[in-house]
Amino acid sequence: MNLVLDAMGGDFAPGHEVEGALMALRLAPGRFTIDLVGQPEAIRAELDRMGISGEPPFGIVPASQVVSMHDHPAQAVKAKPDSSLVVGLKYHAEGKADAFISTGNTGAVMTASVFILGRLPGVSRPTVFTFFPTVTGSNVLIVDAGANVDSKPEHLVQFAQMGAIYAGCVFGKAAPRVALLNVGSEPGKGTELAKEAHALLSARPGLNFIGNIEGRDLIRGTADVAVCDGFTGNILLKFAETIEPFISYALAAELPEAGFDEDAAARVQAALHRACRGFDYEAQGGVPLLGV
Amino acid sequence: MNLVLDAMGGDFAPGHEVEGALMALRLAPGRFTIDLVGQPEAIRAELDRMGISGEPPFGIVPASQVVSMHDHPAQAVKAKPDSSLVVGLKYHAEGKADAFISTGNTGAVMTASVFILGRLPGVSRPTVFTFFPTVTGSNVLIVDAGANVDSKPEHLVQFAQMGAIYAGCVFGKAAPRVALLNVGSEPGKGTELAKEAHALLSARPGLNFIGNIEGRDLIRGTADVAVCDGFTGNILLKFAETIEPFISYALAAELPEAGFDEDAAARVQAALHRACRGFDYEAQGGVPLLGV
Repeated sequence: MNLVLDAMGGDFAPGHEVEGALMALRLAPGRFTIDLVGQPEAIRAELDRMGISGEPPFGIVPASQVVSMHDHPAQAVKAKPDSSLVVGLKYHAEGKADAFISTGNTGAVMTASVFILGRLPGVSRPTVFTFFPTVTGSNVLIVDAGANVDSKPEHLVQFAQMGAIYAGCVFGKAAPRVALLNVGSEPGKGTELAKEAHALLSARPGLNFIGNIEGRDLIRGTADVAVCDGFTGNILLKFAETIEPFISYALAAELPEAGFDEDAAARVQAALHRACRGFDYEAQGGVPLLGV
Repeated sequence: MNLVLDAMGGDFAPGHEVEGALMALRLAPGRFTIDLVGQPEAIRAELDRMGISGEPPFGIVPASQVVSMHDHPAQAVKAKPDSSLVVGLKYHAEGKADAFISTGNTGAVMTASVFILGRLPGVSRPTVFTFFPTVTGSNVLIVDAGANVDSKPEHLVQFAQMGAIYAGCVFGKAAPRVALLNVGSEPGKGTELAKEAHALLSARPGLNFIGNIEGRDLIRGTADVAVCDGFTGNILLKFAETIEPFISYALAAELPEAGFDEDAAARVQAALHRACRGFDYEAQGGVPLLGV
């Protein structure tokens, strides 16, 4: 399997991308090959900085332009045809790589993917998901997590279908339980969007739709896939990332009063950090763009 | 000050209401008087069960009907004119009580309040809020928290105004910082609703509008008031209620490995419980319905 990695996408590009590619090849030798797409001189400068001379263990696909986090997605794709994003996706579309990976501008990655790779049949809106840990030990996949902030009922059905396929194939769940994230458990609850989506999801053949769940049910693990619009999903995701820092802050004030010395408090904080790893998006890494 | 308490509203009515009224009168003697509105025989049966004979320390306003959690709000108000909800609100509207309190069906309380008390000038949608703790030690008020799931941009402006007034008068904040909860900090981000609300909020005189904040900013305390539609607010609120049980579950698995014995682990859990009290809606009690 050959992967093409956008060397220019992230906030710390291309340094982190070069380091990451080297680390991946070292940790999983022989499992895949990697091509970096981007400005060859910038990539070589990183290798020099790291003291690596001679041929790198990855290929370099030249691309002269860079799509930044501030570029407007659709404009960036048109205005920067020789960007690492566009060149990398075309490389993937031509079959020279089996997957394209980028830590760049999510909107631009999504727009370019739709233009260059196309949508899967039946999909009008590609989607990204996130997942939360639950008290059952397994995760709940939350879809959409921000790719589509203004969603229509039929989009939610597509998110449900893509989420269920992913949970089935990748998490190995047979007939994943799909629920609609809503403000009440009864079918008539919620926004017009939620009500219409509930009706469509109920009528969808082949989907194990278990009805509405509330915000409190996510962590209870009552569903394998929770469907929502990307606005709600994104706000939840970003809020969840701050649970650990908040609990850490609040515990720091309580632990001395509870009789824990500095050393014990540090061990509690370390245990908290491990307890929260399911919410740590840096530990979780990226997510696939589904539907292209 | 006289309070009228809906004796028939909650899941454990009228037992908890009778006990709560007695407790409040005992804890704050002379600060207020209480009338319970509901079925006199059911209220008296609770007093008998508690071994209290003679005249109770609160008044009883008779109402023969009960609005349940399953009643449709608007229908319940019309079909049950002698319900504790309708009778209690009329008692308040007539000036016989200074506030009406109910733990019952939120939608029905809101609908009946609009019918019986009326809306304040300039308010088309009364609202309820919640608040989250922050790492600054003060709270962020989140409005709307579920009263209005399908909100229009002008409703969000009203929520902002009501939230700012409340934060100013009750939390004592001068010029409370009001933010729009959104998926990005830039003005052009978000749903059509968010974009239009941003424009209206920016143009609103007298409001200290600081722009968009993201889900991760709530706990950082960058705003005093975070405005959102009731769908998003409700899902966030209900998710936040499960932070403590989740962390408690996840810590329970980590603490023995971190070298804490049962007693120390129990003290950590107790400290966690105190650390999370800002998210404990049972500890926080109720919230006022703003705008009626």
